[in-house]
Amino acid sequence: MKKILVLNGPNLNLLGERETQVYGKTTLNDIKTELNCLANELHAEIQFFQTNSESGLIDAIHNAKDTCDGIILNPAAFTHTSIALMDAIAAVKIPVIEVHLSNIHAREDFRHVSYPARACIGQISGFGKNSYTLALRALIDFLH
Amino acid sequence: MKKILVLNGPNLNLLGERETQVYGKTTLNDIKTELNCLANELHAEIQFFQTNSESGLIDAIHNAKDTCDGIILNPAAFTHTSIALMDAIAAVKIPVIEVHLSNIHAREDFRHVSYPARACIGQISGFGKNSYTLALRALIDFLH
Amino acid sequence: MKKILVLNGPNLNLLGERETQVYGKTTLNDIKTELNCLANELHAEIQFFQTNSESGLIDAIHNAKDTCDGIILNPAAFTHTSIALMDAIAAVKIPVIEVHLSNIHAREDFRHVSYPARACIGQISGFGKNSYTLALRALIDFLH
Amino acid sequence: MKKILVLNGPNLNLLGERETQVYGKTTLNDIKTELNCLANELHAEIQFFQTNSESGLIDAIHNAKDTCDGIILNPAAFTHTSIALMDAIAAVKIPVIEVHLSNIHAREDFRHVSYPARACIGQISGFGKNSYTLALRALIDFLH
Amino acid sequence: MKKILVLNGPNLNLLGERETQVYGKTTLNDIKTELNCLANELHAEIQFFQTNSESGLIDAIHNAKDTCDGIILNPAAFTHTSIALMDAIAAVKIPVIEVHLSNIHAREDFRHVSYPARACIGQISGFGKNSYTLALRALIDFLH
Amino acid sequence: MKKILVLNGPNLNLLGERETQVYGKTTLNDIKTELNCLANELHAEIQFFQTNSESGLIDAIHNAKDTCDGIILNPAAFTHTSIALMDAIAAVKIPVIEVHLSNIHAREDFRHVSYPARACIGQISGFGKNSYTLALRALIDFLH
Amino acid sequence: MKKILVLNGPNLNLLGERETQVYGKTTLNDIKTELNCLANELHAEIQFFQTNSESGLIDAIHNAKDTCDGIILNPAAFTHTSIALMDAIAAVKIPVIEVHLSNIHAREDFRHVSYPARACIGQISGFGKNSYTLALRALIDFLH
Amino acid sequence: MKKILVLNGPNLNLLGERETQVYGKTTLNDIKTELNCLANELHAEIQFFQTNSESGLIDAIHNAKDTCDGIILNPAAFTHTSIALMDAIAAVKIPVIEVHLSNIHAREDFRHVSYPARACIGQISGFGKNSYTLALRALIDFLH
Amino acid sequence: MKKILVLNGPNLNLLGERETQVYGKTTLNDIKTELNCLANELHAEIQFFQTNSESGLIDAIHNAKDTCDGIILNPAAFTHTSIALMDAIAAVKIPVIEVHLSNIHAREDFRHVSYPARACIGQISGFGKNSYTLALRALIDFLH
Amino acid sequence: MKKILVLNGPNLNLLGERETQVYGKTTLNDIKTELNCLANELHAEIQFFQTNSESGLIDAIHNAKDTCDGIILNPAAFTHTSIALMDAIAAVKIPVIEVHLSNIHAREDFRHVSYPARACIGQISGFGKNSYTLALRALIDFLH
Amino acid sequence: MKKILVLNGPNLNLLGERETQVYGKTTLNDIKTELNCLANELHAEIQFFQTNSESGLIDAIHNAKDTCDGIILNPAAFTHTSIALMDAIAAVKIPVIEVHLSNIHAREDFRHVSYPARACIGQISGFGKNSYTLALRALIDFLH
Amino acid sequence: MKKILVLNGPNLNLLGERETQVYGKTTLNDIKTELNCLANELHAEIQFFQTNSESGLIDAIHNAKDTCDGIILNPAAFTHTSIALMDAIAAVKIPVIEVHLSNIHAREDFRHVSYPARACIGQISGFGKNSYTLALRALIDFLH
Repeated sequence: MKKILVLNGPNLNLLGERETQVYGKTTLNDIKTELNCLANELHAEIQFFQTNSESGLIDAIHNAKDTCDGIILNPAAFTHTSIALMDAIAAVKIPVIEVHLSNIHAREDFRHVSYPARACIGQISGFGKNSYTLALRALIDFLH
Repeated sequence: MKKILVLNGPNLNLLGERETQVYGKTTLNDIKTELNCLANELHAEIQFFQTNSESGLIDAIHNAKDTCDGIILNPAAFTHTSIALMDAIAAVKIPVIEVHLSNIHAREDFRHVSYPARACIGQISGFGKNSYTLALRALIDFLH
Repeated sequence: MKKILVLNGPNLNLLGERETQVYGKTTLNDIKTELNCLANELHAEIQFFQTNSESGLIDAIHNAKDTCDGIILNPAAFTHTSIALMDAIAAVKIPVIEVHLSNIHAREDFRHVSYPARACIGQISGFGKNSYTLALRALIDFLH
Repeated sequence: MKKILVLNGPNLNLLGERETQVYGKTTLNDIKTELNCLANELHAEIQFFQTNSESGLIDAIHNAKDTCDGIILNPAAFTHTSIALMDAIAAVKIPVIEVHLSNIHAREDFRHVSYPARACIGQISGFGKNSYTLALRALIDFLH
Repeated sequence: MKKILVLNGPNLNLLGERETQVYGKTTLNDIKTELNCLANELHAEIQFFQTNSESGLIDAIHNAKDTCDGIILNPAAFTHTSIALMDAIAAVKIPVIEVHLSNIHAREDFRHVSYPARACIGQISGFGKNSYTLALRALIDFLH
Repeated sequence: MKKILVLNGPNLNLLGERETQVYGKTTLNDIKTELNCLANELHAEIQFFQTNSESGLIDAIHNAKDTCDGIILNPAAFTHTSIALMDAIAAVKIPVIEVHLSNIHAREDFRHVSYPARACIGQISGFGKNSYTLALRALIDFLH
Repeated sequence: MKKILVLNGPNLNLLGERETQVYGKTTLNDIKTELNCLANELHAEIQFFQTNSESGLIDAIHNAKDTCDGIILNPAAFTHTSIALMDAIAAVKIPVIEVHLSNIHAREDFRHVSYPARACIGQISGFGKNSYTLALRALIDFLH
Repeated sequence: MKKILVLNGPNLNLLGERETQVYGKTTLNDIKTELNCLANELHAEIQFFQTNSESGLIDAIHNAKDTCDGIILNPAAFTHTSIALMDAIAAVKIPVIEVHLSNIHAREDFRHVSYPARACIGQISGFGKNSYTLALRALIDFLH
Repeated sequence: MKKILVLNGPNLNLLGERETQVYGKTTLNDIKTELNCLANELHAEIQFFQTNSESGLIDAIHNAKDTCDGIILNPAAFTHTSIALMDAIAAVKIPVIEVHLSNIHAREDFRHVSYPARACIGQISGFGKNSYTLALRALIDFLH
Repeated sequence: MKKILVLNGPNLNLLGERETQVYGKTTLNDIKTELNCLANELHAEIQFFQTNSESGLIDAIHNAKDTCDGIILNPAAFTHTSIALMDAIAAVKIPVIEVHLSNIHAREDFRHVSYPARACIGQISGFGKNSYTLALRALIDFLH
Repeated sequence: MKKILVLNGPNLNLLGERETQVYGKTTLNDIKTELNCLANELHAEIQFFQTNSESGLIDAIHNAKDTCDGIILNPAAFTHTSIALMDAIAAVKIPVIEVHLSNIHAREDFRHVSYPARACIGQISGFGKNSYTLALRALIDFLH
Repeated sequence: MKKILVLNGPNLNLLGERETQVYGKTTLNDIKTELNCLANELHAEIQFFQTNSESGLIDAIHNAKDTCDGIILNPAAFTHTSIALMDAIAAVKIPVIEVHLSNIHAREDFRHVSYPARACIGQISGFGKNSYTLALRALIDFLH
């Protein structure tokens, strides 16, 4: 049974309520439900966490190193500015996959680049809640 | 009666004590007093908050969406680096005005640009504590 | 009784007629009326001038140094290109405030930076005609 | 039964033979086999094509518009230089997903940006042959 | 009968006298004559104006909005520096075509980009006096 | 009787079918018909060719050097990336005019610059199918 | 007896456990022990603190202004992104020295520059735990 | 008897009154007097002109081509932005020398480069009123 | 007997006919003859190929991996734009030398950099047809 | 007994005489005396050398490889421009520490980066003569 | 009697022999003769020195501080690269004027900027040997 | 009998002793021997010189103009920074070829560009000692 931490960064708590033209109507809870469902199927266990705090994400990544087998991380706006998140990922041995709900490569120029992705095994961007389920499949597969 | 959140970012707690050649001798408390005074006159109600934490500011912006009519935000140093603050402002529907005590356009080059201002209705920069009172007037006017 | 020059740069003569989705329906005359009204209240006197000419603005700034107590300047498109306007402001001793009807920080990248603002006491951007009235308040306050 | 075109760009014909430290030992045939297998499961039909030619890819995208329901595209080195591929994707109405075997965000700086991804619904990068199967799931899901 | 304003920017008054290796021996008068001739043929009426002044060009564009059906504009050196001209074009509703005698894309790098062209319907560059006659045809055609 | 090659680059085969909000409803065939019509009038003969291949365009330019008097070239997306096309034009002695249906100077920043135009006699951009007929007039005129 | 605050930024809590090829096997505790030992010798007193939080560092710097004589700061990844830390240092009057375990000038380009160091008295980079002991000597010396 | 036009750009009319710490106490009249004196000695005749208008400078340069033997030009702030002035100088055959009162190479970065100087025979920068007298000597010498 | 593929990129088929002031009067055939002559002397065998197609070059490089011992590649204009050619060279194990007839380091700035050369053993630039014969010597030497 | 070469670059011979507001009143001799004193304590031997010549520094580094155990190098202005010094350090096996009297990270932007530091074990910047004594301690420690 | 050092940098020893199309036929000796002649007239004494060595120039500047009243410096190619020369000028108290034979502002872009000029009182560029005599006049004037 | 100067720049004296993983085990003496051997065969005479001094290289280039027929120059680290070397080459009439032992186009970005190569007839990079022998052949050939 693989334990997977699903980490969500700043402003994702508002998902589904606001800016639905960009991010759709799915809430973070919908994503959690869907992930749990797929996790069952894949014999995995999901821990789900959201925080608006960069250090909250870093702490969670650190804690995961002894308790989880892998991390699915949506760094949201920190994607483009946080070297600290990149260093946190590089510091723990477990695999991390970066996900984005919207296609960051089709948005403003400053959203095209990612610091954390430099330390991740891969990035999935643009598939709404499916970005998470695809990442879960990829992570479970990577761990086998 | 309009409810206005006044948000102050990193290092503004030290206002009036330090670097008085740049920021003047006004303390944050002086600003609060003056804002309350003007709020009375304009039939508004002020909530006043300072934090050195980026997530503290984001959380406060999120909370304001159901309890306040508008926000006056001095993001201080986060002005030039925080895409997360910009996204937080874009995620809540209430209007936000960015203020600065000093004239950021007359300081170092890296202080000339602002991420949060991209999602604000406007920016007021360079008038010391008056930057706040001007913003309060602008915000009340905008809400009417 | 403070004398304030209100200077308007290129294309502002067309205000209210064209591109109303960006600049609103207010005309320059509406702004003048409103400013005069507030000036009365603040015991100030307004001189109002618009020109499409960079040298026209520079000449007006020069002339103001002996006849006015302060200037409210909307440099419009010259904001982003005119070092000469910046030098003119630096050359006269009276305080100058830069104003913009729209929020220049939310528009094209080349509109985010300002030469004249480097020599001004502050900048107010994004509040339509209120940008001017806020500036008048700020200027009168600064002069006291 | 959804028809999916899987398009592979320059040098991918050598997959599995060369630079196995970067791209692994999987061959393009292995990917095809795996995709066909998953396609069966998902009631889809795969067309598989590789070319080293930019115009070959463009022609294939054009042809797909009347014969396929969606495209999985690995533009390889053209990712970072081909505006023509981006325009081709924008010109056809069917959805396109960009995939990469290696994590392009962890490689040389010039590999971090993508022209075609600007016109795609999303990008999946870094999961070896799984990048393709994940894309197939995402595409089928998108089409439903 | 369409009324077309033909506007010529700085240094074009010297055309045909100087730097003939770059701009040829045609004078502005030759261009006017040729344009009038073609205008006759196309049932149009030409107004022809040259000024070395940026505000002169802006004023002329403004005036044209109520008296002309379209503008042919050679901004000369202002092409690469004048945001004010771009804003003037955007502010009037009539169509504007930018023309250049020499091929600006084959000259110094700083001559490759144009601010006014961002607000024009098109740009014609490199055909000597024919740049103007081609623009006249294009403009009349556009107006029909 | 002047022989003119009209060369069309990548994705132009889809003209009139797709992205009609950008490029209009004209098809490449409409352009050909219109050009033939004007060619008749100007005692010229048109060869019309479209390819999505960069080398196809280069080969066509090379072949034209002994069989044609001039070239009208719409390099489409290759405009911004192909030094090879620029070198091809420089290598043949016959005059080449670059045309664009849309106004490239009003689109994304990376579409503002052109490599082939550095070797052309001029560029015409933004007039839909008229960009071609204007170019034909300009070319015939240049050849006389 | 000088009181010195030793502040450690993000991911430094993992020191000695992970990425030992870059940072060595020394733990933060080893550094603390060594610093205490040297502090004894130099008649100084060490306060030792680590946090992954930017605001945690800012708060600690603020608090130190009334309780400590100087600060040794390892901002880790915040070195390259935090203007807020720079402003915090500038806001307190006590001297601050920036230290790095690895030689940041020999790593990725984005690690070569430092915001906090602009407000520090100096920077020591590359000597593992010795970076701290050298800084302690430098700080005590500076305070005498 | 050589006729020399001395052209002064924006804000130079205020010379000697304002910003004396940068430009000294010399007035434009002092410069004129001194130049006349030296002109006498060198058998030259000085025409002296100041304007805040870019087109004023261009017009004056154009007029000089038939009436003067050379020009001494202080473009002031236009130095760094006016391609039109550069083109005006290139368009007239008489020699032009660019002068600056202050040493522009020791000021802000955006003041280090000059468009007009690209078309001048030389540049003299940093010698106060002597920049003009040196230029007069250089120009007379060049004309012999 | 070493087998060497000599690959020539876009526009090189016109060598000796056009732009002789840049590339000299040597034809590709002259180069082939000279190379064959030297190959005889060095006990090598030359395959000679020119194409204007990027994919043609990539295909040829791929084919060479099982049939040739090394490649001499003149990528011409693709030198500065083709990451795909770089990847093709990296994908085959045989050594590749990049050659240029003219000295690319003395031409336009955009011709100073090379993608393919990053994956080659070396680059020879500026010696006309001798660039090829020198490369042949270097390659044979490298293979021994 | 460790032998340490202390190398001082351009203009450091004037230390203590000039620009004392930046570099303090310490002379190079004072530094030498202090270093000798500390060297005694640490059982090391100091060779002290200053030159204004880049090649003088390179020669000294080369010579040190057989006669010294380590180098303390203050490259002064060469810090920001000399790739040759970086290559010299990389070419000798002994450890090198870069020192600066002033805090280069708090000075002009072009002084923030260092070529030699890329090949050093570390950099110490901002502590006046103490930069040298700290470096001596660090070097002796590194050698043990 | 003022003592003036005239310093000439790299390649100026070849003046008058080579590249006469750029630098004219004047030799360094001609310049010396002319300077001596003018020095006589101005009651000054000239020391004349040329070296191809950066450290030679620095040493000469250092020595001049106790023996000369001012320096005329032609740094030639070091103008654009030598921070060490700038620092040397800043380190000595006597005034320095930078001169150039050709107009560096009309040459390659990398020749438009100067490090030493940042520390000089002014720069004279483009007047051949007269650049030196003008500088001598300026320097003598400055010293009075 | 052609006389060829072979000039070697900074750090090349250590060749073969250090960093053999980059530069191989060949010493400068081995290169000299091999060059002499080939020179014999080609009826040429070699002068061989190494210096770590930029001015040493410049002086040698100057001296060669009257005593040698051509120069083979390995500027080493000066390649990327020395405009003075470029000017020296341009100042002497004899042909110069730039050589590099390693392939500079495959190393750090700052090693991809060359100032001296702009004035050379060509550049050979990446063939170890063969870079020199190939250059000798190319130079002799060029001289005939």
